[in-house]
Amino acid sequence: MLIAFNNLKSEFKRVLLSLAFSEDKAEQCAQIFAENSRDGVHSHGLNRFPTFVQYVKDGLVVANAEPVKESGFGSLEQWNGNLGPGMLNAKFCMDRAIRLAKENGIGCVAIKNTSHWMRGGTYGWQAADAGMIAINFTNTIANMPPWGGIDPRLGNNPLVIAVPRKDGHVVLDMAISQYSFGKLNLYKSKNEQLPLPGGYDIEGNLTTDPGAIIESWRPLPIGFWKGSGLSLVLDLLATVLSQGQSTGTVTKNGSESGVSQVFIAIKPIGIKTDALIEDILAYTKSSRVEKGKEILYPGENTLRTREKSLKEGVWADEKIWEKVKNL
Amino acid sequence: MLIAFNNLKSEFKRVLLSLAFSEDKAEQCAQIFAENSRDGVHSHGLNRFPTFVQYVKDGLVVANAEPVKESGFGSLEQWNGNLGPGMLNAKFCMDRAIRLAKENGIGCVAIKNTSHWMRGGTYGWQAADAGMIAINFTNTIANMPPWGGIDPRLGNNPLVIAVPRKDGHVVLDMAISQYSFGKLNLYKSKNEQLPLPGGYDIEGNLTTDPGAIIESWRPLPIGFWKGSGLSLVLDLLATVLSQGQSTGTVTKNGSESGVSQVFIAIKPIGIKTDALIEDILAYTKSSRVEKGKEILYPGENTLRTREKSLKEGVWADEKIWEKVKNL
Repeated sequence: MLIAFNNLKSEFKRVLLSLAFSEDKAEQCAQIFAENSRDGVHSHGLNRFPTFVQYVKDGLVVANAEPVKESGFGSLEQWNGNLGPGMLNAKFCMDRAIRLAKENGIGCVAIKNTSHWMRGGTYGWQAADAGMIAINFTNTIANMPPWGGIDPRLGNNPLVIAVPRKDGHVVLDMAISQYSFGKLNLYKSKNEQLPLPGGYDIEGNLTTDPGAIIESWRPLPIGFWKGSGLSLVLDLLATVLSQGQSTGTVTKNGSESGVSQVFIAIKPIGIKTDALIEDILAYTKSSRVEKGKEILYPGENTLRTREKSLKEGVWADEKIWEKVKNL
Repeated sequence: MLIAFNNLKSEFKRVLLSLAFSEDKAEQCAQIFAENSRDGVHSHGLNRFPTFVQYVKDGLVVANAEPVKESGFGSLEQWNGNLGPGMLNAKFCMDRAIRLAKENGIGCVAIKNTSHWMRGGTYGWQAADAGMIAINFTNTIANMPPWGGIDPRLGNNPLVIAVPRKDGHVVLDMAISQYSFGKLNLYKSKNEQLPLPGGYDIEGNLTTDPGAIIESWRPLPIGFWKGSGLSLVLDLLATVLSQGQSTGTVTKNGSESGVSQVFIAIKPIGIKTDALIEDILAYTKSSRVEKGKEILYPGENTLRTREKSLKEGVWADEKIWEKVKNL
């Protein structure tokens, strides 16, 4: 079904206010959840909202907690998220990093004890809207084995890289796993094979069977050994820079709470910037295209979905929408 | 054959001096080429040296050119490499970024008109030796199609992330392609299949046949669409931050010269750093291991190879060694 953006948002806000979120915090959180659905990231919009509410009820997310600065040196800052809503902590940190970059060209804000930021791209769009380049990442609970290993010891540690652009920002928002468990479950529920190998079965064979990967708990990192290494170093950076919890510590605690995140903003300087970006995108799109395919830059489809959602309404899963209305 | 590190280095230096490199520049370049072979990265050590010499003879690399600062704002700087030796420009930029990070927590140096940095890991080790985290990347000539496309329009744009550590730094050094053309040629020459799919054949089928990928010029980015997006944004960042040449511009010029690079250094602050790093590595290695495999952190094998090379001599391809001795 399709729901007007404002209806979606006000329903979220109503529920959050009932959970003792302040007016301002309910407004900001509702906006981000509604935007995530609007942009087509349902897994971190409407579909995730009931889980978020449960986390608040369970005390894993503290509705009105505020981030506090713990340390800093120059354009590098360390904050404690105090288990506040991950979206608000992330938005706050991105803003801080943008301010530091405005003052000094580049800024880095790391935060510990925060909670899930939902869609990482949110903060990439935020930085790009402020005219800034962003490089952001978070650690997560362990959900992938390291290369050569069998048991999950690495997070899928999403990485966001954003470049501001007049006619639509370029925003890469990718987890380091090839397919998320959400995606695997989706394919499984439709009784479909993955388009490409997504992990190993319990015998250690590469497979396109989503059920076999869910059973083995061995999804693939992107690029096999390369993504395994990338996931590990992103966890090292997030943990060291925030002096917070690692994927290992979060996993041992049993629930994905108190994660560590990094937000880097860089100010693009130079008069050629806009022309250089357009040249690169045009060159990329100048390739011959596979039959039935299209060459898109990261974020291009997001913008299309956004425009469609605002015009026709935001797509929503009817059952989940009913559930939220009854919260 | 095995060659003592100092023999390898002094042979490189002899050749470079004959090409009118200054004493200091010949010393530094020879050191880096010898270190790359010592650490097992033959493709950017001895094996690459004859090509580097040819580039100097052809004027694509200017032996004694010096980088010049063109612009800057706070801890963000833009330099012009003036087509100087890529290793020296990269080493210089990493040093500048380290100095900026020492002053201000984080520093970013972008350079345009530089040449191939050989092994990107070199500058990761350099930063880690100085106690700094590093995030570095370069663009390259186009050598991969974008996702959905057929013609090469993206570089494999190597990404380096380094974390300083007492008992051996963690240094990720990875191109965004799954296999380099060098690796594909190696498998082809041994008449072997790749262990995992590395690209598409001319018909558009995923294949492990290295010859078919060399023929189609369609190697895979890591993680399929994800690596395609990552390669694109790294080119955007390198080009915009340096105001230099993009993968597209370099490709149109016909030779991999005048590329753009970024060096970010971050100062780790906080007393828990060493313990956090050890915890993360120990947790990663605590997974059960696949039969015959080993779980390694990025850089672990480099250090082993280094120790072996220094003890037993540096492995060298006899034919290429003869060639260098006759240069």
